[in-house]
Amino acid sequence: MRCLPPGFRFCPTDKELILDYLLRRATGSCFKFPTIGEVDIYKVEPWDLPGKAKMGEVKWYFLHRREHESYATGTCPNRTTESGYWEATGIDRPITVSADDDDTTLMTVGFKKALVFYRGRPPTGEKTPWMMQEYRLHDNLLSANESASSATSSTSVRVYAYIRCRRT
Amino acid sequence: MRCLPPGFRFCPTDKELILDYLLRRATGSCFKFPTIGEVDIYKVEPWDLPGKAKMGEVKWYFLHRREHESYATGTCPNRTTESGYWEATGIDRPITVSADDDDTTLMTVGFKKALVFYRGRPPTGEKTPWMMQEYRLHDNLLSANESASSATSSTSVRVYAYIRCRRT
Repeated sequence: MRCLPPGFRFCPTDKELILDYLLRRATGSCFKFPTIGEVDIYKVEPWDLPGKAKMGEVKWYFLHRREHESYATGTCPNRTTESGYWEATGIDRPITVSADDDDTTLMTVGFKKALVFYRGRPPTGEKTPWMMQEYRLHDNLLSANESASSATSSTSVRVYAYIRCRRT
Repeated sequence: MRCLPPGFRFCPTDKELILDYLLRRATGSCFKFPTIGEVDIYKVEPWDLPGKAKMGEVKWYFLHRREHESYATGTCPNRTTESGYWEATGIDRPITVSADDDDTTLMTVGFKKALVFYRGRPPTGEKTPWMMQEYRLHDNLLSANESASSATSSTSVRVYAYIRCRRT
């Protein structure tokens, strides 16, 4: 892909991340991911993440399996790294596709959620400019797809779109 | 380019439009433009522009030579089409690149300006959701480049990034 004309780059839409990457990964479809590598994102500090990506300039993408996460309390994942932690900000935003030809019915296929990195330990961590968008499949997509294996269920694998914001 | 993985598309930065497309076009560099076609944008109505583009989904790019434009009064271009007119909104915003290694000095290489399409004739036209960003080279780039021909001078060719906004 090095011979592409200037201006071509990997800038997927939300729907592409859900349907072309997460769903294919969860259902075990034969699909190579030359653009999104699998990384245990909580074993890497934010400033080292770009170096772990397969490609990217200002935004980097990763696949992450949730079995890497520990759950300190209940169902809330423990998103800590050695030097800090990722904290969700705002609500889950649905990602929809048209369920009919005239775009009158929308079907939710996934969700995205913003995460901010804090240095230190909660609740006294210091906010940083590092941010991620977490993409996950809607649970219903798993039951709708019989070929999905339990090892790579729709809820166990996620995509993270990672950026460093300008704000400090 | 049809065999690219999902998520790859033409989404150039402002700098790429100025330096990789406009400057090369103005200086007659040997460079094929498989992605941006040359169109007299004022002979085409906004809703027909996507069909004139070489590629695009929600944003379309065109090269336009200013000798197509007529100047009704002074140096202000006549941006009318058969059914309406394009009107500039806001100021010219400079597009800069680093002039040294440590990013302390910025050099302006071009400008961009937003245009909105109105149905009818000025000043009573009705605003529409059609918008363009007009990109032009900084005049200094022409004098800095001796190989630029008068037929394709830096000021005579522009790039238009065209979108239909959601607002009505």
